[in-house]
Amino acid sequence: MNNSARNSFIAIKEQVVATKPLIHHITNYVTANACANVTLSFGAAPIMADAVEEVATITSHCQALVLNLGTINKAKYASMLQALRTANEIGIPSVLDPVGIMASTMRYEMARELIREGVTIIRGNASEIATILGVATTAKGVDSSEVDDLANLVRKVAVATKSVVACSGAIDYVSDGDDVLIAGNGHPMLTMVTGTGCMTTSLIASCAAVTKDYKAAAMCGITAMNIAGERAYARMKPDDGTGSFARYLLDNIYLLTGEELTAGYKGVGEDA
Amino acid sequence: MNNSARNSFIAIKEQVVATKPLIHHITNYVTANACANVTLSFGAAPIMADAVEEVATITSHCQALVLNLGTINKAKYASMLQALRTANEIGIPSVLDPVGIMASTMRYEMARELIREGVTIIRGNASEIATILGVATTAKGVDSSEVDDLANLVRKVAVATKSVVACSGAIDYVSDGDDVLIAGNGHPMLTMVTGTGCMTTSLIASCAAVTKDYKAAAMCGITAMNIAGERAYARMKPDDGTGSFARYLLDNIYLLTGEELTAGYKGVGEDA
Amino acid sequence: MNNSARNSFIAIKEQVVATKPLIHHITNYVTANACANVTLSFGAAPIMADAVEEVATITSHCQALVLNLGTINKAKYASMLQALRTANEIGIPSVLDPVGIMASTMRYEMARELIREGVTIIRGNASEIATILGVATTAKGVDSSEVDDLANLVRKVAVATKSVVACSGAIDYVSDGDDVLIAGNGHPMLTMVTGTGCMTTSLIASCAAVTKDYKAAAMCGITAMNIAGERAYARMKPDDGTGSFARYLLDNIYLLTGEELTAGYKGVGEDA
Repeated sequence: MNNSARNSFIAIKEQVVATKPLIHHITNYVTANACANVTLSFGAAPIMADAVEEVATITSHCQALVLNLGTINKAKYASMLQALRTANEIGIPSVLDPVGIMASTMRYEMARELIREGVTIIRGNASEIATILGVATTAKGVDSSEVDDLANLVRKVAVATKSVVACSGAIDYVSDGDDVLIAGNGHPMLTMVTGTGCMTTSLIASCAAVTKDYKAAAMCGITAMNIAGERAYARMKPDDGTGSFARYLLDNIYLLTGEELTAGYKGVGEDA
Repeated sequence: MNNSARNSFIAIKEQVVATKPLIHHITNYVTANACANVTLSFGAAPIMADAVEEVATITSHCQALVLNLGTINKAKYASMLQALRTANEIGIPSVLDPVGIMASTMRYEMARELIREGVTIIRGNASEIATILGVATTAKGVDSSEVDDLANLVRKVAVATKSVVACSGAIDYVSDGDDVLIAGNGHPMLTMVTGTGCMTTSLIASCAAVTKDYKAAAMCGITAMNIAGERAYARMKPDDGTGSFARYLLDNIYLLTGEELTAGYKGVGEDA
Repeated sequence: MNNSARNSFIAIKEQVVATKPLIHHITNYVTANACANVTLSFGAAPIMADAVEEVATITSHCQALVLNLGTINKAKYASMLQALRTANEIGIPSVLDPVGIMASTMRYEMARELIREGVTIIRGNASEIATILGVATTAKGVDSSEVDDLANLVRKVAVATKSVVACSGAIDYVSDGDDVLIAGNGHPMLTMVTGTGCMTTSLIASCAAVTKDYKAAAMCGITAMNIAGERAYARMKPDDGTGSFARYLLDNIYLLTGEELTAGYKGVGEDA
């Protein structure tokens, strides 16, 4: 089943473009603009709303929900809980991005409660994913640190949370608690631009809005960001830096076809 | 009077550059950066402030006020009411952008109350403008849907709200309840970048700050965004996408002269 | 001692890249993305968090703290006070950016209280710095107005506040109340893009995280932004505007070496 994720990328991308799913984001103010733009560029439609009086209604109009813990506060968290309950009632997928939970007990507790409430997919870096399981990590902000045997860790977190877990980094892992998909796309330059993690979460939500195969959706969103990153880097000239890379990255999310996603995917022994 | 709007564009643009009006924005966190940049690029000066303790003072220093309902909440709305009352007391124009009011009863009620309080100009897409009048629209997020006879609708909303109403889309309509200006500038690529509607609202406010002809100001702001969009698209190369388009768009807002605004304007039977 | 600042730039830049200091930002939603990106591009790591329940913990993980008064409100201000007290307890530097304090009594009072609490560095434009001392300025939003004898003013504010004071503009001044460093780098185009002041504050914090010479850190951060601005402008072509300039600016922050900082620095009689 080595190509189980790759084989669904074309259909997922086609469905996103054909149905333009509406993705409700409750997210941070640092990368909200980048998340809106990446969602649009991939073919879906973003809507950002976080007031407790309206989030349930907004979610009820949508095809997927993003819950991103960056710049979180109690008011926004109360809205996340409301929106998540609505998403679960109407049966649309939710994607949790536990930004920085290793650096803040408040964020950690919020992530745990949202997971108990039931989220479809969790996407984070290695530190964030390890923290969910209570593995001690060096809390150097929101960057990932080395964790041994990530494939096994990701699978364990998926079992413990009953969610599909996506761990993105130099190597990406996606597990539903059974199989683990592993891929090797991407470029280190992606860590030099803020919000590439948040944007990946938006792409995953856009994919999850059009398929019930959430493992494939998670890997499709990750791979879209990674291949766009590879192409953005390839386009850089000597006087280009992070500003140019950010522009080329969004360009390539927009230009990327389902066929290119499938052809460019570097699956690594997808069934662990 | 076919050129009634076009003829005022040069004077409006000159006045903006000459006086650099200060535009108070109470707006959403998704597109605030883009709105600030488009305001600066056009020659005006943005100031963003939304704390209830300071908004009246901030508005009193300004030449126009933007009220944008994206990512709205009750605290920010209370500030909008305060700022709007100040704007009306000191006689500066206000521009309401009723982002997503078809998807949220809370936003709809807020828009209605602000309109009752008295806003100078309302700018939205067809769905948002139709919703103000109680016309049922498909609530697909914040995108516009087809509405029959938009020119007539826009005129009716202007009559009902006693505001100048600007409805932007493939065809743009501006009415004061009497005449309807119609124009055909723009490019579909403008819908692929987040915030082009919000940015248009900022441009309209920048224009309204320097003239009492609010119909001309609304069409001038719309046309600036649209011609910049046309030029941005014309500059795109095969490996360019949304990231490059966003850059070219801001470039062209900066480069655009009043003469180019006038020459590029595609008025369509301006007096309906 | 004409080269006192210049001589430390190479070591500061090397230390930033070598240790990747974590910079806690409590900042506005207009320029937060730009601040995160400029911090990453310079070699440091940003973390944005403003909930009162977590700011003390977040600050305790960091090497410097940014307090930016743009789009401030009472809740965020309470978090600033908490974070600042933590920073002072653990002995990491803080940088206050008193955005728009000449336009709002609330912001002015907040700035004064934070200064009484003890901030390491204050960075603003001439109007903002003058306002701290009670000098009347024309409150034209957040732009600087002419103030006589800026070098002397900056020194006085440094004495009064017991902070290092950095006043950026066409000419930049940094003083600890004793010496005044003066430099002439930069380009007027920097005033046409939103957030270049906020970004400079982030760069200063990144530098202050790795040295105890806060005067040199302030001038190093200012000079990095200014030289990047000079180079960004030099790269502009006839059809480029503010969108391209913003891209080139971030590119050049990323590309800039300590050697280039030192070589490009235009010190003006640094010891006043």
